[in-house]
Amino acid sequence: MGGDRYARGLEKFMQVDGKGGQKAVDDLAELVPELGRYLVEYPFGDIYSRPGLELATRELAAVAALTAMGGCEPQLRVHIHAALNLGCSRQQVVEVILQMSVYAGFPRAINALYTVKDVFARRDAGEARRED
Amino acid sequence: MGGDRYARGLEKFMQVDGKGGQKAVDDLAELVPELGRYLVEYPFGDIYSRPGLELATRELAAVAALTAMGGCEPQLRVHIHAALNLGCSRQQVVEVILQMSVYAGFPRAINALYTVKDVFARRDAGEARRED
Amino acid sequence: MGGDRYARGLEKFMQVDGKGGQKAVDDLAELVPELGRYLVEYPFGDIYSRPGLELATRELAAVAALTAMGGCEPQLRVHIHAALNLGCSRQQVVEVILQMSVYAGFPRAINALYTVKDVFARRDAGEARRED
Amino acid sequence: MGGDRYARGLEKFMQVDGKGGQKAVDDLAELVPELGRYLVEYPFGDIYSRPGLELATRELAAVAALTAMGGCEPQLRVHIHAALNLGCSRQQVVEVILQMSVYAGFPRAINALYTVKDVFARRDAGEARRED
Amino acid sequence: MGGDRYARGLEKFMQVDGKGGQKAVDDLAELVPELGRYLVEYPFGDIYSRPGLELATRELAAVAALTAMGGCEPQLRVHIHAALNLGCSRQQVVEVILQMSVYAGFPRAINALYTVKDVFARRDAGEARRED
Amino acid sequence: MGGDRYARGLEKFMQVDGKGGQKAVDDLAELVPELGRYLVEYPFGDIYSRPGLELATRELAAVAALTAMGGCEPQLRVHIHAALNLGCSRQQVVEVILQMSVYAGFPRAINALYTVKDVFARRDAGEARRED
Repeated sequence: MGGDRYARGLEKFMQVDGKGGQKAVDDLAELVPELGRYLVEYPFGDIYSRPGLELATRELAAVAALTAMGGCEPQLRVHIHAALNLGCSRQQVVEVILQMSVYAGFPRAINALYTVKDVFARRDAGEARRED
Repeated sequence: MGGDRYARGLEKFMQVDGKGGQKAVDDLAELVPELGRYLVEYPFGDIYSRPGLELATRELAAVAALTAMGGCEPQLRVHIHAALNLGCSRQQVVEVILQMSVYAGFPRAINALYTVKDVFARRDAGEARRED
Repeated sequence: MGGDRYARGLEKFMQVDGKGGQKAVDDLAELVPELGRYLVEYPFGDIYSRPGLELATRELAAVAALTAMGGCEPQLRVHIHAALNLGCSRQQVVEVILQMSVYAGFPRAINALYTVKDVFARRDAGEARRED
Repeated sequence: MGGDRYARGLEKFMQVDGKGGQKAVDDLAELVPELGRYLVEYPFGDIYSRPGLELATRELAAVAALTAMGGCEPQLRVHIHAALNLGCSRQQVVEVILQMSVYAGFPRAINALYTVKDVFARRDAGEARRED
Repeated sequence: MGGDRYARGLEKFMQVDGKGGQKAVDDLAELVPELGRYLVEYPFGDIYSRPGLELATRELAAVAALTAMGGCEPQLRVHIHAALNLGCSRQQVVEVILQMSVYAGFPRAINALYTVKDVFARRDAGEARRED
Repeated sequence: MGGDRYARGLEKFMQVDGKGGQKAVDDLAELVPELGRYLVEYPFGDIYSRPGLELATRELAAVAALTAMGGCEPQLRVHIHAALNLGCSRQQVVEVILQMSVYAGFPRAINALYTVKDVFARRDAGEARRED
């Protein structure tokens, strides 16, 4: 059953985060070899696998939260890619971030808009799947 | 043109926040008589009136951000009501909040689950439109 | 010299915080008997005693920061009283808090406006120096 | 293997959180029936079960983080109880919280000292295991 | 009337932010063409245009909040320039930031002191109006 | 007596922060000549000199708080070095940071793991005492 959960989570992880999430796992494997298992099992095997909310909407919610929290640019990049990979439009991502100016103030929203601008530019340059 | 923006915002404001948002405006009118106009014009007249993102999704993004930020229980209540009023299911609201445990930790998510539990109970008791 | 710093700080502390700050010191004396000395020496003996910024402006800066941080209502109350005691107008205090909607979002500003409304009401009722 | 992880986590959960953590699980079971499993599996089955850091030190680290974050009073209460149940002295708990004034400012530290004072009082009154 | 508000805001925006704020507007115009209008209308046309608080004091309050929130270095730079452009002394800016160590802890204050040091150096080198 | 407090704090400061803390003091001495005295007196002369909590545990608590707060990478570096200098194992530092994923979410913990990875690498390269 633990194995099922891991397998189910890994499928979601690959579908959602792609190489972005895998990079953090690889970078930090020396310090925490189990990090990949943790990220697959709880966020993806448990949470993202729950019914009742579409994956694309989950990614917009992640973009909202990471924008509002501030200081999470690396994760914001991963989840902007994920939102787009799951079929969200660029406009939807921009709208969610801009809306955060209401709840978290203009600075957090503007900082995240700089991040989204860079992610779009990298995707346009075809580098998204290699570098991010 | 300013009048159009206000009218457009007021329509959204009523559609989204209903009596919840109006209460803050009334409570604080003595200190900031223009607060109602500010809340109508920028968040609703400008942001919520933009195309490209459904209102229901905007409310789920608001719930995500307010959960992750912490300390925004009054606003979280208003936006949980708004999400439900706009057609989101209770399950969608719960899922967004639970998902925040991944980005903002278990305490912020659990605190917001207590808020959502109370909002659901009040709506079940038919008090939502009167008291909140 | 340590004694000078304490004396200088105590004078500022009394001038600024009055009974509001003293209450926290008394409440917590059992846990940290030195808390009063710490609050007097660093914030007041060192920081508030520095030249180059008026005390009233320092209090408006404190109100700004505590509003933007969120979750600091007890301290916000103390510093709203302090700002008024040092000659700031009620309007100045309200303006600083409202302005925080730009940097920290509407929820933090609105929550602080509820606090300021209550502080004004207590002062009007003549309770400020006894209860807060 | 999933079962082992749950069993291992449940043992830690009971050892650490006791009735405090269980209360949140029970309160929110209607909204998220799996919450108990999530809290047992990742925080306790995975993280708290890792070697290399004593449980008592983990609880002091939790108290430090929850104090610095602010707005997590319910969780702070649970972890103050846990620290004491695991053999930390009251003085150690107070010292960690007071130290947070350096990194997160006096308001966060003072707010947490009020919480710790109340937890100590309840334990002295013999209510800790029933009410918290 | 909408036009008046925009004109009034634009005047404040130019007076306060100068080229610093304009740069964010230009950088992000492709993503959110209306961003310039939003920043002019609400923060400047509405908030900064309100009577009862001097512009220079508003800027010190902005510096206080951005220091305490953390992670807002680009905005902190803009508002340090603005404070100085509006007649605040360098000492006033440094004092407000240092004071934040009391409310938000030493790390947030020290990080902002590094930012202020760099802004002063650029102004001394005559680059402020071109590069920031 | 003030002199004793400074002397006692300086000894702790040197024992704990070593060159890392001194660098901030030197960098910012032009802006705030008293910063060194402030950092020595309150955090070290007062707080770190209190009995009842080991210095090594204090450093793990600092690492926990700075990880959970986010945006404090320079200070996190200093306190990771301090924890190791005081006898904490690398594993203890990693465990405290990883544990923060539970309270503050995965992004804050992962960001801090990148910082700790870099600190370990610099120490391995023998640069820690010179560059950090």
